Amino acid sequence: MNYTAHLDTALTRLHDEGRYRTFIDIERKQGQFPHAIWRKPDGSEQPITVWCGNDYLGMGQHPDVLAAMHQALDATGAGSGGTRNISGTTVYHKQLEAELADLHGKDAALLFTSAYVANDATLSTLSKLFPGLVILSDALNHASMIEGIRRNGGSKRIFKHNDMDDLRQQLQSLPVDQPKLIAFESIYSMDGDFGPIEAICDLADEFGALTYIDEVHAVGMYGPRGAGLAERDRLMHRIDIINGTMAKAYGVMGGYITTSTKMADAIRSYAPGFIFTTSLPPAIAAGAAASVRILKRSPELRQAHQTQAAILKTRLKGLGLPIIDHGSHIVPVHVGDPVKCKILSDRLLEDHGIYAQPINFPTVPRGTERLRFTPSPVHGPREMDALISALDALWSHCALNRAELTA
Amino acid sequence: MNYTAHLDTALTRLHDEGRYRTFIDIERKQGQFPHAIWRKPDGSEQPITVWCGNDYLGMGQHPDVLAAMHQALDATGAGSGGTRNISGTTVYHKQLEAELADLHGKDAALLFTSAYVANDATLSTLSKLFPGLVILSDALNHASMIEGIRRNGGSKRIFKHNDMDDLRQQLQSLPVDQPKLIAFESIYSMDGDFGPIEAICDLADEFGALTYIDEVHAVGMYGPRGAGLAERDRLMHRIDIINGTMAKAYGVMGGYITTSTKMADAIRSYAPGFIFTTSLPPAIAAGAAASVRILKRSPELRQAHQTQAAILKTRLKGLGLPIIDHGSHIVPVHVGDPVKCKILSDRLLEDHGIYAQPINFPTVPRGTERLRFTPSPVHGPREMDALISALDALWSHCALNRAELTA
Repeated sequence: MNYTAHLDTALTRLHDEGRYRTFIDIERKQGQFPHAIWRKPDGSEQPITVWCGNDYLGMGQHPDVLAAMHQALDATGAGSGGTRNISGTTVYHKQLEAELADLHGKDAALLFTSAYVANDATLSTLSKLFPGLVILSDALNHASMIEGIRRNGGSKRIFKHNDMDDLRQQLQSLPVDQPKLIAFESIYSMDGDFGPIEAICDLADEFGALTYIDEVHAVGMYGPRGAGLAERDRLMHRIDIINGTMAKAYGVMGGYITTSTKMADAIRSYAPGFIFTTSLPPAIAAGAAASVRILKRSPELRQAHQTQAAILKTRLKGLGLPIIDHGSHIVPVHVGDPVKCKILSDRLLEDHGIYAQPINFPTVPRGTERLRFTPSPVHGPREMDALISALDALWSHCALNRAELTA
Repeated sequence: MNYTAHLDTALTRLHDEGRYRTFIDIERKQGQFPHAIWRKPDGSEQPITVWCGNDYLGMGQHPDVLAAMHQALDATGAGSGGTRNISGTTVYHKQLEAELADLHGKDAALLFTSAYVANDATLSTLSKLFPGLVILSDALNHASMIEGIRRNGGSKRIFKHNDMDDLRQQLQSLPVDQPKLIAFESIYSMDGDFGPIEAICDLADEFGALTYIDEVHAVGMYGPRGAGLAERDRLMHRIDIINGTMAKAYGVMGGYITTSTKMADAIRSYAPGFIFTTSLPPAIAAGAAASVRILKRSPELRQAHQTQAAILKTRLKGLGLPIIDHGSHIVPVHVGDPVKCKILSDRLLEDHGIYAQPINFPTVPRGTERLRFTPSPVHGPREMDALISALDALWSHCALNRAELTA
C-alpha cells in the first residue's frame, strides 16, 4: 500500500483549488485588542490589527475575567484532573452551569469542551434517547450539528435554508407518532442572517416536534441579558435545547447546552462525548462564569457592538463593496473566488497590517468565497479608517467589481 | 409524542441497574494536592483526599506550569478568539506543537481540544483520506476511538483484546491491496494492562498496515523523556500516528496527535473536528508546553510515581484485596457489582474522607465494577496509611471477598 500517494492526492486537490490553508501565527496583546503581533514564517514580527476574530466583544481581555482565571489557577491549579464523573466536577463547573441555566431561563445546563462537541454529542445522543427520531436540519447548519446528526446513522431530513414551506411539507410527510426534532441556528455565521425562530417554534408545536437552536454567534451579544436571539424575541421558553459557546462573545473557551433538568440528566448520562473526556479546567470555567455574569448586565457593550457593525457596513456600502447585510454584527464581503480571496487577504495583511482570513470551501460553498470582518467595541475610529482605506485601494488595484452604490 | 416518557425510561434504567451517576463536587487545593474540599449537596464542606484523579504526577499544581499560564493570560488574554484557521493560531499553539513533535521524535503535531476529539476526528478522517480503509481495532479501545472509527461508517474489524493470533488472522483475511490501520492503546486505563506494541508493529509491517496508538495514560509517565511506552520500548519510529493528552500526567487540558508532516497536513485540512472549533486558549497551550518541557527532564518524578503505585499494590495485596496488577501505575480493585461498588465509594468518602469514584458500566463491562485508585508522587505515607486502613475496615464490614493471600 502506498499511503503517501493518497495523502499527496488529498493535499494536491487543496492546492489546485486554491484553498490550501496556511495558518497565520499571531499573539494578541492583552489590554490592546484588537492589536496583535504577527509572527511571520521567517521569524520576523509585524504589528497587525485583527479583524476576523470571534472574541466579538473583547471579553478575552476583560480585567474581571482574567482576575477570575488567575484566582482559580492559584486556588485549585491548572487542570481539573478528571472526567466530570471521576474527580473532574468542581465548584467552578457547577457555578458556571448555574450561571448559564439562569441566563437562558432553563432548569439545567451541561458544559462540554466546546460548542462543537456540545452539538455533536447532544444531537447524536438524542437519536439514542428517542428511538426512531428524525432530525429536521436546516441546510446551512454548522458542521458540528451535521456531524452530530449523522453520527449514529439516525434518520434525518434537510430542509432548505430558512424555508418554512419546505419545513412544513417535510413535517407533514412524516408519521404523526414519529419523534421529531428541528435543529437550526439563530445566526448563520458566514452570511450573518437570522433563523426564523418563532415560525419554527410554531411548526414544532403544530407537529409535536422538539426544538434545538444553536446560538453560538448570538450569546453574549443579543437579548437584554445576552442570552441570544431567542431571549431578544422572548422565545427561550419555546426552545427545548439551546446550544451556546463560551469561546466567542464570552472570550474564553468551552460550549454548553441548556435545557430541562430531565433532558440534561439523560444527555449527561448517555453521551460519550460528555462522559469520556476530561472536564474543562476550573480556571476556564471561572473565567467563563465571570464573563457571563458581566455580560448579563452590559447592554451598553452590546449596543456599542451593533453600532460598530452598522458603521462598518455603512462605510463599506459607501465604497460600493459587495457586502452581505442581514442586519447582524457579521460583515461578509463577497469575493467569489478562492484565489482572489487569498490574494486580497495576503495584501491586507502584508501591506496594511490588517488581518482578515479568507473564508473558502468547505466553510462556505464554492463560488461564495469571502472576506469576513468582525467589528467589535475595541475597534476604534482609527482602526476603522485604516480598514476602509485599505479595502478601497485594494479593490481598485485588483479591479474587483463594486456593487451599485446604494448606501 | 410523549418525549418525557422516553427520558424517564432511559433514566429509570440507570437507577434500576444501580449505575446512575452522581457527580461529586470538589475543589482541589493548589499546593496541597491530593487534598481537596468536598462541597456536599446541602452546601456543607468536608476535607477529602482525592484517590481517583488522572493528574497522575501532580503537575496541575507545578509552579512553573502555573507561572506559564499566568504569564500567557496577562500577555494575550483569556481565549484564542478563533479557530486555528481564523485568527486562533498563536505562538503558544505553535510552540506546544513543536514541543510535542520533539517529544515523540516526529515531524509534526496537531492540537485538539481534547484527546477524545483527537481520536474521534483523526480516526474518522483517515477513513476519508484512504478510500476503502479498514480499521482493525482492539476490543478494549477507548470510547473516543470507537466513536471515531464508527463515525463515517468506514470498514472496521474488532480484534480480541491484545490477541495477536486473532489480529493476524483478521489481517490475513483482508485483500493485500486494501488500506489498513491497526488502532490500539499502550495502557488500557481500566485494567492498567499494556498493549503489545512491538508485536503489533511487526504485524503492521508484514501486512502493510498503518499503526495508530493511544498513549493518553502513558505520556509524561513512561520513557526516558516521558513520551510514553513506545518511547520506553524504542518503538516510536514504527508508529505512524501517536495520540496523547495534556489533561492527565501533564495536568492541564487538550489532546494531540504526532505524526509525519504530510499526515498532519492532511488531517489538519480535512478533519471537521479540527477545523470548525475554537482553538485552545493560549494560556492552556502555554501551561501544557511548560509541563511537557519539565517532564522531559524529570525521570525522578516518573520513578516516584512507579514507587508509589508499587507500594500501594503491595499493601493492598497484603490485605488480600482483589486487585488487578499488570505492572502499571493504575490500581483497580475488583468489586464486581455496581451497587456494592457505589456503597464502598460512598462509605470511603463520607466516613473516611477518601474519594475514589465507583467505575461502572459503560466505562467497564457489567460484572467488573471496580474502585480504581491512582496513587501519585503527591500521596504521602499518611494518605496511604489512611487509605489502607479504611479499605481494610470496609472490606470486613461489607463482608466482601478477599483474594488468597499471596503478597
